[in-house]
Amino acid sequence: MLKVYGDLQSGNCYKVKLLLCQLGLPHEWKHVDILNKETRTPTFLAKNLNGKIPLLEIEEGMYLPESNAILHYLADGTPFLPAERLLRAQVLQWQFFEQYSHEPHIAGARYIIRYLGRPGDYEAKLQEKMAPGYAALEVMEKHLTGRRFFVGEQYTIADIALYGYTHVAHEGGFELSRFPSVNAWLERVSRQPGHVTMSGA
Amino acid sequence: MLKVYGDLQSGNCYKVKLLLCQLGLPHEWKHVDILNKETRTPTFLAKNLNGKIPLLEIEEGMYLPESNAILHYLADGTPFLPAERLLRAQVLQWQFFEQYSHEPHIAGARYIIRYLGRPGDYEAKLQEKMAPGYAALEVMEKHLTGRRFFVGEQYTIADIALYGYTHVAHEGGFELSRFPSVNAWLERVSRQPGHVTMSGA
Repeated sequence: MLKVYGDLQSGNCYKVKLLLCQLGLPHEWKHVDILNKETRTPTFLAKNLNGKIPLLEIEEGMYLPESNAILHYLADGTPFLPAERLLRAQVLQWQFFEQYSHEPHIAGARYIIRYLGRPGDYEAKLQEKMAPGYAALEVMEKHLTGRRFFVGEQYTIADIALYGYTHVAHEGGFELSRFPSVNAWLERVSRQPGHVTMSGA
Repeated sequence: MLKVYGDLQSGNCYKVKLLLCQLGLPHEWKHVDILNKETRTPTFLAKNLNGKIPLLEIEEGMYLPESNAILHYLADGTPFLPAERLLRAQVLQWQFFEQYSHEPHIAGARYIIRYLGRPGDYEAKLQEKMAPGYAALEVMEKHLTGRRFFVGEQYTIADIALYGYTHVAHEGGFELSRFPSVNAWLERVSRQPGHVTMSGA
């Protein structure tokens, strides 16, 4: 059976959970506590040299890290990943946008507030994340204006990738009310068949 | 004809140039000056909302941004991207590693030194990049020990993606001499048929 090492409160891990549920794939979820440095133990580093979650165990001893690589592996050959070459590249375009221009700022701010409890010596770092985080939301807002989903007008793993941290961006101090098209898209994603929330509901 | 908007001194743009040359694909290269804010003009933003290079123009009015999405688009169906599902996911694993755990630190440090001329008020930011940059090089070193290439023992776009900024990491102040397997791999990549350098040689 597929096994995932992860923390459901992490948007990167939740992406994988959401797709697994929507695909109806049986899996075991092994909780990993990052604050307790469980990703830095020799046992975990032997599974993923880069010491990060989520980590998919495909079969005993065969591991795949990186949330978006896992989404591709699981979605390949399903309606969640288009077969056509340009559409596949556009799915990747938005997943790389997410990891480079979105996640470090939006998930980073949420991590400081929610995981670390907003300690005073992180305030400057938190403030630094606001402008690029809002810039990423602005790019999403412009792209989604007049569109239902990110790629090819169908729900794909590009939507799942961006939903992961966008739907909890307020926990990082971002005001989502400024972005009406993003809000409509969040609502649309949450109505897809088989949707589960971060709390598992 | 394919057209690329880019700056050959950017590792992200050079990745695309290297693959285009190795595939023997005719293309036009349109130089974009980022320091002169040419990626922030209304004309450029109409092509790429996120205002970044490289940007591939596939045909008139059809644009694809994000270096690693472009590599996938161009390499699809060629020996540079394996067809097998797990190998494709592993190529992505290393490309997402590159954009999240490697590029922001290694390319970021090089940008401060080479593009900005290492101004004093960037010194703290530069120093912050050293530990995570070295951590990324350490992950590469461990993975490459006993391996010839990153995925499936063949030269793929995972190697091209990581070569882009690793081979100029010394320009960001990183000592590559500490990483013998990375050095042997850099040499191996540079000997692949059709290899071109950043200066076009």
